[in-house]
Amino acid sequence: MIGTPQKLAVIAPHPDDETLGVGGTIARFAAEGCEVSVLIVSGHLPPIYPPEAFQTTRREAEEAMAVLGVARTEFLEIPATMVHERPVAELNGAITRFLRSSDPEMVLLPFPDRHIDHRVIFDASVVACRPVRPSAPKLVFAYETLSETHWNVPGVEPSFVPEVFVDISSYMGTKETALACYASQLHEAPSRSVDACRALARFRGSQNGCHFAEALKVVRIVI
Amino acid sequence: MIGTPQKLAVIAPHPDDETLGVGGTIARFAAEGCEVSVLIVSGHLPPIYPPEAFQTTRREAEEAMAVLGVARTEFLEIPATMVHERPVAELNGAITRFLRSSDPEMVLLPFPDRHIDHRVIFDASVVACRPVRPSAPKLVFAYETLSETHWNVPGVEPSFVPEVFVDISSYMGTKETALACYASQLHEAPSRSVDACRALARFRGSQNGCHFAEALKVVRIVI
Amino acid sequence: MIGTPQKLAVIAPHPDDETLGVGGTIARFAAEGCEVSVLIVSGHLPPIYPPEAFQTTRREAEEAMAVLGVARTEFLEIPATMVHERPVAELNGAITRFLRSSDPEMVLLPFPDRHIDHRVIFDASVVACRPVRPSAPKLVFAYETLSETHWNVPGVEPSFVPEVFVDISSYMGTKETALACYASQLHEAPSRSVDACRALARFRGSQNGCHFAEALKVVRIVI
Amino acid sequence: MIGTPQKLAVIAPHPDDETLGVGGTIARFAAEGCEVSVLIVSGHLPPIYPPEAFQTTRREAEEAMAVLGVARTEFLEIPATMVHERPVAELNGAITRFLRSSDPEMVLLPFPDRHIDHRVIFDASVVACRPVRPSAPKLVFAYETLSETHWNVPGVEPSFVPEVFVDISSYMGTKETALACYASQLHEAPSRSVDACRALARFRGSQNGCHFAEALKVVRIVI
Amino acid sequence: MIGTPQKLAVIAPHPDDETLGVGGTIARFAAEGCEVSVLIVSGHLPPIYPPEAFQTTRREAEEAMAVLGVARTEFLEIPATMVHERPVAELNGAITRFLRSSDPEMVLLPFPDRHIDHRVIFDASVVACRPVRPSAPKLVFAYETLSETHWNVPGVEPSFVPEVFVDISSYMGTKETALACYASQLHEAPSRSVDACRALARFRGSQNGCHFAEALKVVRIVI
Amino acid sequence: MIGTPQKLAVIAPHPDDETLGVGGTIARFAAEGCEVSVLIVSGHLPPIYPPEAFQTTRREAEEAMAVLGVARTEFLEIPATMVHERPVAELNGAITRFLRSSDPEMVLLPFPDRHIDHRVIFDASVVACRPVRPSAPKLVFAYETLSETHWNVPGVEPSFVPEVFVDISSYMGTKETALACYASQLHEAPSRSVDACRALARFRGSQNGCHFAEALKVVRIVI
Repeated sequence: MIGTPQKLAVIAPHPDDETLGVGGTIARFAAEGCEVSVLIVSGHLPPIYPPEAFQTTRREAEEAMAVLGVARTEFLEIPATMVHERPVAELNGAITRFLRSSDPEMVLLPFPDRHIDHRVIFDASVVACRPVRPSAPKLVFAYETLSETHWNVPGVEPSFVPEVFVDISSYMGTKETALACYASQLHEAPSRSVDACRALARFRGSQNGCHFAEALKVVRIVI
Repeated sequence: MIGTPQKLAVIAPHPDDETLGVGGTIARFAAEGCEVSVLIVSGHLPPIYPPEAFQTTRREAEEAMAVLGVARTEFLEIPATMVHERPVAELNGAITRFLRSSDPEMVLLPFPDRHIDHRVIFDASVVACRPVRPSAPKLVFAYETLSETHWNVPGVEPSFVPEVFVDISSYMGTKETALACYASQLHEAPSRSVDACRALARFRGSQNGCHFAEALKVVRIVI
Repeated sequence: MIGTPQKLAVIAPHPDDETLGVGGTIARFAAEGCEVSVLIVSGHLPPIYPPEAFQTTRREAEEAMAVLGVARTEFLEIPATMVHERPVAELNGAITRFLRSSDPEMVLLPFPDRHIDHRVIFDASVVACRPVRPSAPKLVFAYETLSETHWNVPGVEPSFVPEVFVDISSYMGTKETALACYASQLHEAPSRSVDACRALARFRGSQNGCHFAEALKVVRIVI
Repeated sequence: MIGTPQKLAVIAPHPDDETLGVGGTIARFAAEGCEVSVLIVSGHLPPIYPPEAFQTTRREAEEAMAVLGVARTEFLEIPATMVHERPVAELNGAITRFLRSSDPEMVLLPFPDRHIDHRVIFDASVVACRPVRPSAPKLVFAYETLSETHWNVPGVEPSFVPEVFVDISSYMGTKETALACYASQLHEAPSRSVDACRALARFRGSQNGCHFAEALKVVRIVI
Repeated sequence: MIGTPQKLAVIAPHPDDETLGVGGTIARFAAEGCEVSVLIVSGHLPPIYPPEAFQTTRREAEEAMAVLGVARTEFLEIPATMVHERPVAELNGAITRFLRSSDPEMVLLPFPDRHIDHRVIFDASVVACRPVRPSAPKLVFAYETLSETHWNVPGVEPSFVPEVFVDISSYMGTKETALACYASQLHEAPSRSVDACRALARFRGSQNGCHFAEALKVVRIVI
Repeated sequence: MIGTPQKLAVIAPHPDDETLGVGGTIARFAAEGCEVSVLIVSGHLPPIYPPEAFQTTRREAEEAMAVLGVARTEFLEIPATMVHERPVAELNGAITRFLRSSDPEMVLLPFPDRHIDHRVIFDASVVACRPVRPSAPKLVFAYETLSETHWNVPGVEPSFVPEVFVDISSYMGTKETALACYASQLHEAPSRSVDACRALARFRGSQNGCHFAEALKVVRIVI
C-alpha cells in the first residue's frame, strides 16, 4: 500500500550524510523507478577546511550518487559550521527553490542532532515543507546520521526514536559500495566505519522483522 | 504513493469509538475498494450498565457500520471498565485471532487515554501487531477519541500529537451520518456532540492544508 | 476564584497573532474591566516585505485592537524573520520596559513554534517575566497560533498541549469581527481562515465542557 | 486575581500525604475562609500492617487536620498497596461521591509516583474530575509527596516539574506543627524528616521569589 | 574511576533476558573479580507453556550462567504473563529479599517495555532499590532486551535512550557463547538472532568509541 | 565502586555558577586528592556591565576557587549574553583546548537553561566531549544552577531531572564559605541566597538518603 514514490528529494547537510542516513532507501527507490534529487547544503570549505577538501568530497559525492542511482545532485556550497550565520530567509528560500524544482512526493531531512548544521538545516527544511500549497510534499521524514544523531543528550535534546522502517535487505550491498566512495570521510574508528553502518542497518532490521533496514522519524504524512 | 489499503482492521474499545475516531477514514477507504473489518472489544454490559444497553448500542453500531461500508464487525462483549480484569494472554489472543482472520495491511488502534479500557486494549493490540511474523501488518496507527483522548494530563500521561492526516473532505457527511446512528451515545453537551466532531475534523484539516481530516499517531510503518 | 485580572499584557510576534491566539480572552477580560496592553514586536517590513505592507497591517491591527477593547498597543517595528539578529539584551530590554510600563498581573506569550520569530520572542519574554522582583507578573501563559504552532515536529520539537482553557463562548463573535479586520492576513486556505479559527475554539471548548474556548499552556502561576 | 477558593477538596492516598504535600496551602486557604475537605483513601491496615497501626495514624491525621483548619475529613479505609485490587468503577465512584458532596472549586490530587497507590488514586481522581458536568471543578492540580514523588525514574516515568507555586511563607510554622502530629510516620532519616520538608518548601520558594512555597502541577484550569 | 563492582545483582524477567541484555557486562565484571547474582523472576510455565518448557529453559539458563561466570542464580518460578497477578507486596518482598541476601553495589533491571512482565518487574525492582536504608544499592541501571524493548511505541511509551555504555569488546565472544546455550529461545528470525545481538552491541559501541558495548539507562547513581 | 576521579574539569558560564552548582563536589574530590580545573567562559564585561565588574567577580572567583581547592582556573573573558555571537568553531575550539590541557576523567557542564549563555556553552561543551578520541572523558554530567535552571518552562524546554547524587554532607560548610566569597553576586532575595543553596542541597540529599547532596544529569558514562 505504500508504494515507490515517483519523485524523492533528500536534503543532506554535508556530503556523505545522505548515504549514511538513507543510502539504501535511495538505491531501492531509484531501482524501482523513482526520480531521486539530492541537495547538499554545506561543504568542507574554508575557513575550517582547506580549499581542496571541498573538491575531494564533491567528487566522492558524485561517485556515490552515481552508485545509488540519483538523478540530480545540487550543491549549495555553504561552509561547514557556518550555515546558521546565513539569513534565515535566504536558507529557507534556497531549500524551497530546490523542492519546487524537484517537486517530490517524499522528502527526507536530517535529524536535528549534535552537529549545529543539521539543526539549522532541519529547521529550514521543515519550514520549506509546510503544507501551505497544494503541491507541498505529502510524506516528510527525518533520517539518522551515524554518530552525530546518537550524541544528542538523553532527556535534554530530542532523541531519534523511529517509527518508520524501510526494508533495504536487497540494497545493503549498494549502500556499502556508495559509502566506500567517501574514502576521505569514513575511517576505521568505531563511530563511523562501514562496519558500524552495517550493524546499525541490521539492528534497525531486527526492530521490524527484516534483515537490513533504514529508520525514519515522521515529520508529516498526508494520505 | 500511499494508496488505498486492500484490507483495513479497526480495533474499537466500545461501539462509537471507531466512528468518532476514524469514521471518515473507514468510509473513504471502503469507498475506494478496501475491505474493512471492525472489532468492538467491550460493551455497555452489566454490572455497570443494564442488560438492554448493550443491545441498543450493538444495533446502533451495526447501522453505523453499514453507513460506513464496513465488511465485517465482531463483538467481544467484555463489560466496560472490566477489560483489564481478563487474563492478559486471553485478550491478546482474541485480538490476535481477529487480526489473523482479517489479515490487514493497515491496523487502527485506540490511543491509550483517560478511559482505562482504551489503555488496556491499546497495549494488547500493539502486542498482537508485533513484527514477529511475515504476515504482521505493515501500517499500524493509533487514533484519537473526542473527549477521552484530550483528558490525559499534560506532561504526566502521553499526549496525542499526530503526525498523520487522512483527508476526509469528501467523507465528512458520511461520518456525520454514521455518528447520528449512535443516538444513545452522542449528546448536546460540548464534549462529544456531532458539532464538536466536525470542529475537530476541521482543525485537523487546517494542520495539513485540507478541509476535513482525521489525525493518527504512528505506531509502526514498514515500507 | 480565578477572576478578571486588573491588567493584562499580551506579547505578539506579528500583527494578528494576538487575535488568532487570544482575541476572545482579550475581548472578555476587557469587557469585564481589565486594562489590556499589547506589544507587537515584529512586522511586515523590508527586506522581506514591501514598505507599505507594514502600514497596512498596522492599520488592520489598530482596528482589531479597537474591536477587542485593547487600551494600549505598541509596535517595536523589527522586520519579520530578523528578530533573532538583534542583540539578545536589546530585545529582552524592550520587552522588559513594556512590561514595567504596563505592570500586568497576567502576561500572554506566543508559543515557541515553527516560526523563528515566535521562538526568539518567547525566550526573551520568559526572561523578562522571571520572578526576580516583587512586581514580576503572577500569571504567565503561552498561547497557540493557528497553523504555525501545529507545525512543530512531534517528538522532536515541543508540542502545544494546553492545561488552561478560557471560556470565550460569549466573545466568539467579537473575536471573529477582530479577525475580519486583518483582511491582508487571513485567506480562504484551510490553514488560517476564520472558519478554522472557529473550529479550533470549538474543539478547545469540547475539552473542558464549554462552547468556545481559547487554550493556554502555563509558564508560571504564583498564588 | 487568583483569590482564595470558597471550597477546596484534597485527595490523599495515606494519612500524612496531604500534610507533606499541601499542608501549607490547606492552612493558608482555611485561614482565609475556605472550607477544606480531605479524603484519605487508603490506610495502614492488614494484611501489611497490624490492626492498631490504622488507629494510630487516623488519630494522628485527625490532630493534624485540626491544626490545619480542615472542616471535614473522610477515610475510605482501603488497605495500603491494595487500592488497585478494587474494581475500577468502585474507586471512581467513591471519589466522585466525595467530590459531589464537597462541591469544590479547587481539587488537589497526589502525583502518580513510585507508590502504586498514588498512581491508582491519581487516575481515579482525574476520572472523577472530568469536565462532563457544569459542576465539575475548575481548578485541578497534582501535588508532590516528599521521597515517593522524587523516586520516579527520570526519562522513563513522569517527572514532577511544577508550574504553580503557592506562597506559604506565613504558614510554614502551621505546616510543621501539623507534620509533627504524625509521630509514627516521620523519622530522622533524610528522606522524610520535618527538616527535609522545610528545605523543599524553601527550594520551591526560591523558584518564584517567595520564602516558602508549595509546588503544584496543573491538571486542568478553566477560567 | 568507575571500577569493577564487588557485587552485582541482575534481575531478569525470563531466562535469556539477562544474557541478551547484559551478558557481556556480567562476563566482564565476573572476570574482573565481581560476585554476580541473578534472579530470574518468571518462567515458561503453565498455563501458557507446557510443563517441560520450564525445565528446558532452566537448564539452558544454568549453562549460560556458568559460561558468564555467575556465582548464584535464583528462580522465582512465576508463570510468564502472570507476574502482575501476584499481590504487589509479595513480588516487592521477594525481590527485596534477593537484594538483601546478595547485598550488591550495582543492580541491573529490565527496562519497562512491550512485555507486561518486564514492566511489572521493573516497577517492583525500583521499589526494592529505594534509598531508604544505608545498604541500598548505589548504582541502579535498566538494560535493553532485543526486540521487546524496541517495540515500545515512540512518543506514547518510554523509549530506551541510554546514557551509559559498558565496553564489552573483550567479552563479546563469551556473550555469544552464553546466548548459544539458549537453543530453545533464539531463532533465525531477524528480531532475536545471535547476529542481531552482535549488531546491537556493535551499534552501541559506535556511540561511544569502542568496538562492542552494552547500553544502560540510569535509574540512580549515588557517589 | 565509583571512586574519586584523578582529574576533574568544570565548565562554568560565569563566575559563581561552578560554586552554586558543584561547589561541594569540587571540594570533596579536591580533598580526596583530585586535580580540579575550572574554565570560566563568560564574565561581567562591557557592554552590559561596567569594566570594574569583571575585576570584582574575577577576584571573588579566585578566592572561592582557593577555598574549594581548585588547582587551576582559566577565564575566557567573553562578555555575558554575547557568547552566542562568537563563531561556533571558535568557542568549541577554546573549550576543546581547555579539556585537552586538563585531560579529565570527569567533566561537569552547565545545564542548558533560562540563561542563553548556559545553552550555548552546554552545546559547545558537549561537542568538545564527543567520544571521537580514546582520550575523550569517560564521565560527563550537567549540573543545575539555582534560579536559572529552574526557570525553564515545563513541557516546553528541558527540565533538570537528575539521576546522579554526590554526597557532600561533609563539604556543605566549605561550599557555603566559597559561596560567601561571591559578595557581589549573592543577595538576600529568595532566588539565590546562601540559604536557598543550603535548602536545595538538603532536598537533593533527601532524594537519595544522605544529608546534603549535589545533583547531576548524565550526559555520558563509559565504563
